[in-house]
Amino acid sequence: MRLSRYFLPILRETPKEAEIVSHRLMLRAGMIRQEAAGIYAWLPLGLRVLNKVSAIVREEQNRSGAIELLMPTIQSADLWRESGRYDAYGKEMLRIQDRHEREMLFGPTNEEMITEIFRGYVRSYKDLPLNLYHIQWKFRDEMRPRFGVMRSREFLMKDAYSFDLDQAGAVHSYNKMFVAYLRTFARLGLKAIPMRADTGPIGGNLSHEFIILASTGESEVFCHSDYLDYEIPPADTDFDDVSSLQGTVDKWTSLYAATSEMHDTAAFDGVPDDKKMSARGIEVGHIFYFGTKYSEPMGAKVMGPDGQERPVHMGSYGIGPSRLIAAIIEASHDENGIIWPESVAPFDVALLNLKVGDAGTDAASERLYRELSAAGCDVLYDDRDERPGGKFATADLIGVPWQVLIGPKSLAEGKVELKNRATGARELLSVDGVVSRLTAHK
Amino acid sequence: MRLSRYFLPILRETPKEAEIVSHRLMLRAGMIRQEAAGIYAWLPLGLRVLNKVSAIVREEQNRSGAIELLMPTIQSADLWRESGRYDAYGKEMLRIQDRHEREMLFGPTNEEMITEIFRGYVRSYKDLPLNLYHIQWKFRDEMRPRFGVMRSREFLMKDAYSFDLDQAGAVHSYNKMFVAYLRTFARLGLKAIPMRADTGPIGGNLSHEFIILASTGESEVFCHSDYLDYEIPPADTDFDDVSSLQGTVDKWTSLYAATSEMHDTAAFDGVPDDKKMSARGIEVGHIFYFGTKYSEPMGAKVMGPDGQERPVHMGSYGIGPSRLIAAIIEASHDENGIIWPESVAPFDVALLNLKVGDAGTDAASERLYRELSAAGCDVLYDDRDERPGGKFATADLIGVPWQVLIGPKSLAEGKVELKNRATGARELLSVDGVVSRLTAHK
Repeated sequence: MRLSRYFLPILRETPKEAEIVSHRLMLRAGMIRQEAAGIYAWLPLGLRVLNKVSAIVREEQNRSGAIELLMPTIQSADLWRESGRYDAYGKEMLRIQDRHEREMLFGPTNEEMITEIFRGYVRSYKDLPLNLYHIQWKFRDEMRPRFGVMRSREFLMKDAYSFDLDQAGAVHSYNKMFVAYLRTFARLGLKAIPMRADTGPIGGNLSHEFIILASTGESEVFCHSDYLDYEIPPADTDFDDVSSLQGTVDKWTSLYAATSEMHDTAAFDGVPDDKKMSARGIEVGHIFYFGTKYSEPMGAKVMGPDGQERPVHMGSYGIGPSRLIAAIIEASHDENGIIWPESVAPFDVALLNLKVGDAGTDAASERLYRELSAAGCDVLYDDRDERPGGKFATADLIGVPWQVLIGPKSLAEGKVELKNRATGARELLSVDGVVSRLTAHK
Repeated sequence: MRLSRYFLPILRETPKEAEIVSHRLMLRAGMIRQEAAGIYAWLPLGLRVLNKVSAIVREEQNRSGAIELLMPTIQSADLWRESGRYDAYGKEMLRIQDRHEREMLFGPTNEEMITEIFRGYVRSYKDLPLNLYHIQWKFRDEMRPRFGVMRSREFLMKDAYSFDLDQAGAVHSYNKMFVAYLRTFARLGLKAIPMRADTGPIGGNLSHEFIILASTGESEVFCHSDYLDYEIPPADTDFDDVSSLQGTVDKWTSLYAATSEMHDTAAFDGVPDDKKMSARGIEVGHIFYFGTKYSEPMGAKVMGPDGQERPVHMGSYGIGPSRLIAAIIEASHDENGIIWPESVAPFDVALLNLKVGDAGTDAASERLYRELSAAGCDVLYDDRDERPGGKFATADLIGVPWQVLIGPKSLAEGKVELKNRATGARELLSVDGVVSRLTAHK
């Protein structure tokens, strides 16, 4: 992408309304724009990151055997009356009347609707297990939306719903998601720790939050520091292997880890002092097993092998890609701007032509742009007629992992400069050398 | 994808509520499920098609130089008061009050919001031209939603908005979209004819609808039949070439073509009798140039080269991917089901193991599944223990372009059968032969 033809509205000044660093940086880098309280437009740079995060979430859901569909944003109130949540949900639900005065709502979550879909088609235990997910915009009418997309009203959520014949099957489905979540957060460059959690308005008996540690976190968390070095389950994990998956989950839940709501001081005292960790945390995922809480009142039943009909056991599993982006920035930035993990960076490389109009730098820049793009790199090519200082600042601010600086001085010696955004390390390489370095893993 | 692990809820009976063939087939093939009047969930098979259609729309938007962002679904009423459309829009707008009793709405279109974004950042003609688009769910509270996703209330729309300094620039932006639309519909397997159109509630002076011919079309259209054989602009079209693009648009608008609203009997009489075509048509895209209709009241101005500030000239350009899918089915089906163009098919190949449990067919099927998948084919592998008749019917109904039938009889001679869904042509090939045939273009 040529920056001269792109839409990247960088802000020079730090917006006053932004209280946390991710919100400030997302506004300054031209990733988002507020359209109403807690409602944001995703500008082109932000949308690129949102799509990359969503793609990783999707790949790991698919790997675990979950199947993607897409439910609508607007739901009928009657559906929520069946589960008894319509009145219980409170003011966070955005309630709507349509032109025929039918009561509708903007879905804050989808347990009811997915249960309705399931009961419409599935009759037999032979069609289980089943895990259906979607990635769709949700709305929760927060009293005080703030912190940008960290706590917005309209937000993107991946929510998966599992259906099993019995509790044992449901626990295996839960474990699949548990492992998929570990892999997802690791691929996003995050250290996430599963913590036993309160089940809240979703309900249920078994629940974990996945928490990343960040000084701006919303709540205090307590855990054993060994979790930080635990190995992530590999890509070729066999999600059908019940006992191996249970082993992984057991390992990841054997040491102490709790949010402040679930904190047990006595148990925490048992953690060796040099392993005690207490910090601020950001919730980036939440999984629930809630048995027949929705299937029972809504009549989602299947025939078992014994010929008996029974309500299915369900779980639900959420990750918010829009919120995750703020969490990634909270965990990865410096005084100059964002530092994207390569897996979710909006571009792989920023190409900075430091003297537009100079035949040499123009030719080298165009050649690099062409060759890197052809090799499958996402390149942002700063071809604007601007001073180098502004180009450096923009590239640092938007946090692209690699910068290639093409200036007349080094080019006179046949070299361009390759800069790593995270480490600041710089290296002089030939044009060919840069291409082979940056495309080695493509 | 193994069908035994997929969620493909085929309906045996034809749903009574469906009046048109696309609606019937989408329900029967397990593509969609109605969740409320005019509001649909996209089941896994339907979502695959929706994503493929959206990807083609996106590629052609990007090729023309448009830049993708993503605006939220919920908008503030105040924005629409600025343009004067809040009161004018009528009952099709879904109006909402949030918990603080602020007036909001579910966006039926985005002229106001994109103008707000533009004016927030762009100050100079040097940043023009600019074309920003998004692909987002919209809501229009139709009095009588019907025909499935053809006329639904919640629907997916790609809407692009162009910004130019003056009318000449805006016409070039219009022409870019015109050409992008021709390419988009052709890639979707549709013959779309641009017809001069009424501008309706969007307003403006120049507008074309893109219409495909189908006997179930919503309106009558009249045109010169030569359009059906016109060549589509190539992939390497230079979208910066103002006069060449104008030439293409002139060619595609030189012969008679009009919807019934714009029909001019006298002009139509001038078409040679053997070229006169009147038929039912389905609108699949609509483009508008409306000058300063929004930029003027909303103060979206840029500094021109003469140092004078002036409101920008705008256009908007819509395609509905969800509606397009119904249109494609209307144009491409037979008595057994859907016939997908290869570009948007949910799977490339359906692999039918006709005798699950037979060592030979199992081994050949598994091998084909592995090798075709590895070569980049999207394969739906019917590995269920069902009768061949049901497998044939399902494969025909869901309309995957190629079927591979693996039965013990032909396998005894080292062959499997390759069937083309569109033509019904069948051919006996070796397993290797099928792989090389189906992956030749991957």
